[in-house]
Amino acid sequence: MEPARLTVLAGPTAVGKGTVSADLRKRYPQVWLSVSATTRKARPGEIEGVHYHFASADEFARMVADHELLEWAVVHGRHWYGTPRAAVEERLAEGVPALLEIDLAGARQVRATMPEARFIFLAPPSWEELVRRLVGRGTEDAEERERRLATAKVELAAADEFDHVVINDDVQRATDEIVSLMGITPHS
Amino acid sequence: MEPARLTVLAGPTAVGKGTVSADLRKRYPQVWLSVSATTRKARPGEIEGVHYHFASADEFARMVADHELLEWAVVHGRHWYGTPRAAVEERLAEGVPALLEIDLAGARQVRATMPEARFIFLAPPSWEELVRRLVGRGTEDAEERERRLATAKVELAAADEFDHVVINDDVQRATDEIVSLMGITPHS
Repeated sequence: MEPARLTVLAGPTAVGKGTVSADLRKRYPQVWLSVSATTRKARPGEIEGVHYHFASADEFARMVADHELLEWAVVHGRHWYGTPRAAVEERLAEGVPALLEIDLAGARQVRATMPEARFIFLAPPSWEELVRRLVGRGTEDAEERERRLATAKVELAAADEFDHVVINDDVQRATDEIVSLMGITPHS
Repeated sequence: MEPARLTVLAGPTAVGKGTVSADLRKRYPQVWLSVSATTRKARPGEIEGVHYHFASADEFARMVADHELLEWAVVHGRHWYGTPRAAVEERLAEGVPALLEIDLAGARQVRATMPEARFIFLAPPSWEELVRRLVGRGTEDAEERERRLATAKVELAAADEFDHVVINDDVQRATDEIVSLMGITPHS
């Protein structure tokens, strides 16, 4: 069995990474999606090992100390999230195509630890469309709108750090392009 | 002139990186400290090019797109910060010892882009002392205290990713150890 290659899917806030991952999980069950470790508490309906690996701060710290995480970060200064390395390496060794859906900072960390991975940037169909999704329904004040636009601008500027850019104009089309980049024949 | 080596100083929240940097700036003016770029507005008394390089979101995005930043991140979801690569490389080429004071996530990014740098972890004298500095004056509620302890545990666990660990038991002693690691004879 030839080892598979890790695929990292990242992109700006609000581009639709979660929706694309959900579509991929449904239509391409042969792709293994990485399950993150987190120190936040499980919400109702969330299952250990399926949605997240729930860990205490002590357990998370031990994983960091033992270099068991491919990347890790604190989100909103509150909870830690990380990608367990062993599960990813086991799937790849078994020849199972593995996908990691992650934010931009995480993708840059994975490049440091696993540079041979395939890095895909999920991009909005246009700047205007991303602004529309980010700025939303006009409920934000001017400062919040400014902040979100700055986020979008900087995140979009990171696109050319990636091996491939996939436009999320249509969820199923974007998913099919991603699996095609992973060497899987997309459903026609 | 032999090129110098970049030194990266990182460590957990509240360990005293800023105090050590200030002491180093005062007593060892031959060390060049990197000046970060940021999208936040200048505060009264802050000088462009001394405290920060103040940039618009457009300018910051251009620097990201042109790979002009050694590392960059959004802080508290509000403002972007980054380390301009050119100034660091110019100082090093001139043989000037350069120091970058940065958070843990930034240090891991610099390792990806400049693995030949010297990575120093500034550590508290003890776990109890860090907890004391983090948890503070008993004004936080239980959840906030829990959150800060989790942060400290995970950040401390990252120490062995670094080349050297310097204990911040006494600011001047810690500074002297850092410059000594940089190949500079400390003041006796």
